[in-house]
Amino acid sequence: MEKMRIESRKNERVKIYKKLSQSASERARSGEFTAEGARLCADAARSGVRIKSVFYTVQALEKYRPYLEEIFGRAESACEISEPVAEALRDVRSSQEVFCILSREGLPSEGTLSAEGLYIAAERIQDPSNLGALFRTAEALGISGMILSDDCCDRFSPKALRASMGSVFRLPVQKVKDLPASLRKWGEQGFFTFAAVPDQNAESVLQCRFAPGSITVIGNEGSGLTEETIRACRTRVTIPMRGRAESLNASAAAMILMWEMMREPGMTYPSRHDL
Amino acid sequence: MEKMRIESRKNERVKIYKKLSQSASERARSGEFTAEGARLCADAARSGVRIKSVFYTVQALEKYRPYLEEIFGRAESACEISEPVAEALRDVRSSQEVFCILSREGLPSEGTLSAEGLYIAAERIQDPSNLGALFRTAEALGISGMILSDDCCDRFSPKALRASMGSVFRLPVQKVKDLPASLRKWGEQGFFTFAAVPDQNAESVLQCRFAPGSITVIGNEGSGLTEETIRACRTRVTIPMRGRAESLNASAAAMILMWEMMREPGMTYPSRHDL
Repeated sequence: MEKMRIESRKNERVKIYKKLSQSASERARSGEFTAEGARLCADAARSGVRIKSVFYTVQALEKYRPYLEEIFGRAESACEISEPVAEALRDVRSSQEVFCILSREGLPSEGTLSAEGLYIAAERIQDPSNLGALFRTAEALGISGMILSDDCCDRFSPKALRASMGSVFRLPVQKVKDLPASLRKWGEQGFFTFAAVPDQNAESVLQCRFAPGSITVIGNEGSGLTEETIRACRTRVTIPMRGRAESLNASAAAMILMWEMMREPGMTYPSRHDL
Repeated sequence: MEKMRIESRKNERVKIYKKLSQSASERARSGEFTAEGARLCADAARSGVRIKSVFYTVQALEKYRPYLEEIFGRAESACEISEPVAEALRDVRSSQEVFCILSREGLPSEGTLSAEGLYIAAERIQDPSNLGALFRTAEALGISGMILSDDCCDRFSPKALRASMGSVFRLPVQKVKDLPASLRKWGEQGFFTFAAVPDQNAESVLQCRFAPGSITVIGNEGSGLTEETIRACRTRVTIPMRGRAESLNASAAAMILMWEMMREPGMTYPSRHDL
């Protein structure tokens, strides 16, 4: 591991970090992204993410030594930075003054979907915090992987990464250019494709059977799924609503759908069927 | 309805609005609170909330006339305001320049819990957006009412109100000074009290029966429920986790618990038992 000290905000690595943290196109071009926070960076190390550089202040080293040692164990270079440099890098108010440049190379990607898997596909999710939260809950509940339409926001943005609590490091992802075409293809291969719609005439999520090999597609926060994507799915699924339907927001709906996918009788959980 | 025009930021009503929107103690003292946004204010009118004053600019009247007419129908006074006054009142970036002072008087409160009801009790929820989202989802799913410990944040704060999408206007609420004592009392009265804990040794939410007369208690975002509250409940309930348990945040857990309460076989939904 290469070691150095950086005192100038104009240092080349500092500039690269800032550019990566601010620009989705720079992240896409370089295949690199940034993470801030001792815990999130240690989580990257633990998840086997390739760490190009870690930046930390002397104070951070004292305060977060166990985390930093995990990070040093995998980092290609370690840069002790001055307070003004930390000030220039930080994105959150109460910064822990630990920063990493990470590589997307080697992150789990879902090449071919497994016939046994349970997947969430997301179309045009716009808010990075929502996308991150989706990853976080998907991982907690044991979803096999995520499928993202090309026009979803960037899961490697600082906000999305933070909201995901590191789930972006671990959950396999497949990005697709043409979501409806991919859904039709998977449907032909025998996958069960479900379009989540706020329409009480669609099939109730309580009546759907999410067998292994199911994909549930959730849409944009405001406008839901596109017509073409809905048509590309075998089944339209909805959440039956006793109260005011308009009150259920997109994140809450996605959470309930994931939960219902994972609580299938065939799955590992004890279910009411067994009681 | 009294009508007037306000051009000065130093107008007494403007000062009252600002104080109410900024101070929880002022809201508690006066029994009044504020709402911003054409839709949220119209929602207050529709929900039967007492509207002390509405403030609006000429531009807002043009743009949101149908909403404003609903509001005028219930407002005690209507104040056309100048742009600088709107600027002084607004709390959100893209303001619609419609503001109300509302009264808590007459809002639904849960005096005595119904033996047929399904309730959520919240202990020490700190983030107003989380509290608002809890109300919103509770209303969407048909929860009967909310019980709030005294140390929850203020549901009438601008942030909580916004996140609730007006559910705070409609969902019956009971505030309690001593939550453990109240839970013990309800337990003695025959209510089923469930403490939500992140402990995989507790009873699985899939095995719990949330009969009519159930109360599920959820805790603080970071630290969960207090020991005393857990001990005051009959049952400890948890969400079985296939993935990384620490990834499920408090809001997601609360949503899943509410959903499970409402999908009981005895409830109105068609359940897998009937299929």
